Order: sequence, then structure tokens, then C-alpha cells
Amino acid sequence: METSINISNGKAPLSTSSKAVQQPTRGVKKGIAIGDFIIRLCAMAATMGAAITVGLADQSLPFFTQFLRFQAQYDDIPSLVFFMVANAIVTGYLVLSLPFSVICIIRPLAATPRLLLVIFDAAMAGLTIAAGSASASIIYLAHNGNPNTNWLPFCQQFGDFCQAVSGAVVGSLIAGTLLLFLLILSAFALKRS
Amino acid sequence: METSINISNGKAPLSTSSKAVQQPTRGVKKGIAIGDFIIRLCAMAATMGAAITVGLADQSLPFFTQFLRFQAQYDDIPSLVFFMVANAIVTGYLVLSLPFSVICIIRPLAATPRLLLVIFDAAMAGLTIAAGSASASIIYLAHNGNPNTNWLPFCQQFGDFCQAVSGAVVGSLIAGTLLLFLLILSAFALKRS
Repeated sequence: METSINISNGKAPLSTSSKAVQQPTRGVKKGIAIGDFIIRLCAMAATMGAAITVGLADQSLPFFTQFLRFQAQYDDIPSLVFFMVANAIVTGYLVLSLPFSVICIIRPLAATPRLLLVIFDAAMAGLTIAAGSASASIIYLAHNGNPNTNWLPFCQQFGDFCQAVSGAVVGSLIAGTLLLFLLILSAFALKRS
Repeated sequence: METSINISNGKAPLSTSSKAVQQPTRGVKKGIAIGDFIIRLCAMAATMGAAITVGLADQSLPFFTQFLRFQAQYDDIPSLVFFMVANAIVTGYLVLSLPFSVICIIRPLAATPRLLLVIFDAAMAGLTIAAGSASASIIYLAHNGNPNTNWLPFCQQFGDFCQAVSGAVVGSLIAGTLLLFLLILSAFALKRS
């Protein structure tokens, strides 16, 4: 099967000896491409989970007055809105990138789809890490407060909300790390044999 | 074009004509390596400036009581401490990476120093962006506050401090973007052809 793919790649001018040298390289690159696909799926699951968790995190306290309702939701905190939007965008990108990852599995030596993936992966890694760490610093503040600036913590009151958001932030940061790892993998895949 | 790419793969049994084809590739890769060096210098300047600005940002209000001194400094806010440490680390890394970048200019076709740079660049890009956006969300809070969580802004009082830190955050985010761009450049430098 390997040979038939090579022939169909249109590499007619190569001699059989160079093809024999190319085989192990091709196998390694195919392995890298499959790893890329799996990591991409994991990152997609992480960002999707993070976006949904934060979107649904919603806690109301069991008491309220005529004018005040004590409720915590993601849109009370601008960073969390950014977090949700960014993670939704990255999830969408990762879904759209799966076909390109499959192309890289089928044609492990093709450079163009790989370069496309590198460019967008870099942008999305930046977005994911930015969203994750912006929310991490806010949720740290929600847990611990900051006496120097008189910002009081609210996680004692809204424990469930804080826990949900903390989990989502961890998921998003893991996804960002996976995307950076994808970039490194891509560099190895692009390396001349 | 397909054919020329196939030929220039550096396969030993090929004739001398392939060496002539390889020359422009080498020139392009040398250009990429020089661009890498320049961008690295810019990123270094940005992270160094950010770390120093935040480290020196220090504002005291012109009134104080016997027990209270109204002063804003980076170590009042944990995110800013992380910001300064992270930017100092990235500056140190970028200084150490310059020799490797020079090696890539001298030997544009060598893959190993380039791969080393990719691995560490990815980690440092993540660190820079994380530090920048964590501090960005805190400094946004310092500027605008958040009425939903009763976190009041303090930039009216400590305007100079806030301005210095905001500038440093922008510098750090620019450095992070430059590092991601370096990763993309490295992918192009590693590309076969």
C-alpha cells in the first residue's frame, strides 16, 4: 500500500534506492501526523468543555431582597465573557482544522497543509493561553481577594460558580499547552528528513 | 514546480544541477534566519522594557497618616510579580538564544539548532502571553473596576502607576506575538525545498 501511495504522489523521477531511504522518514512523519490528529481532538474537547462549563456556570444564592438578587454568572465578569468567546472560537477552529490534519496523515510529506496548520495553530495557541490566564488571574482574585487594593473575594459565597470556572480555566490552559505542543510537533514534521 | 521541489530535497544520487536549484532556497532560508535574529532582538527589548517598567513603577500619594501610607507598587498585586518574573525569564532566554539564532544564519540548512529554538520559543511564547494577559485583566480591573463584584478601580488615585503598568503589559503582549511569529518563521525555515 505504501508503495502505491508513493507512486500516486507523482514522484516519477526518483530512483528506487532513494525511495528505500525515504520509507522510514515517511513512517515517522505519518506517526507525527497521527499524533497531531489525536492531540488536536484532546485540545478540542478541552476548549469545548471550558466554553460550555463557563457558559453554564450560574449560581443564585437562596435569599434575595425586593431589589437585589444575588447571582453569579459568567457575564458579570468581562474576562469570563472573553474566555467563553475565545474558547468557542478555538473549538470552531479545531473542528475545521481536523480535515487538514487528516490530509497530513494521508500525505505526510506535503508541506503546504502543514504550514497552514502552523500559522493558525500559533494564533489560536496565543488566544487560548491569553483567555485562560486572563481568567486565571481574575478567578485567583475571586478566591483570595487582594487586601492591598480592597478587592474582596467572593468564592466563599459563590463556591460552585468559582469551582466550575476554575476547572474551565485549567482546561483552557491545558488546551493552550497542547496547541503549543502541536507547533513543536509540526516543526518536527516539516524538518528535512 | 512540483518537480523542482522533488529534486532539491537533497538526495545524494542527484546530479549537480540540483545544487544550482538549492542555492535560492539557501538564500531564502538565510533571509528567514536574519529576520528571526532581528525579531528576537525586538522581542528581547520589549520584554526587558516591560520587566523594568513594572519593577520600577512605584507611586506614593502626597498624603499619609501615622499608620497608613498610600503607595502602589508592583508587589501589591500578585499578577504583577508573576509578570515581572516571567518577563525577566523570557529576556534571559532571548539573550541566550541569540547565539543559536546566529548559528541558524551561518548554517541556514541545519535543522537541529532550529528545532531547539522552536521548542523553547514555544514555551517562552506561552509564558509571555500568559503573563501579559493575566496582568492585562488585572490592570483592566484597576482602570474600570467591576461593580458586580464590588471591586473598585484605583487608577484615578494611582494614575502614573497604572499608566506604567499598562504600557508594560502592551509591550509584553507584543513580545508574545513576536515569539509566536518566530515559531511560524521557523516552520518556514524547516520546510523541505
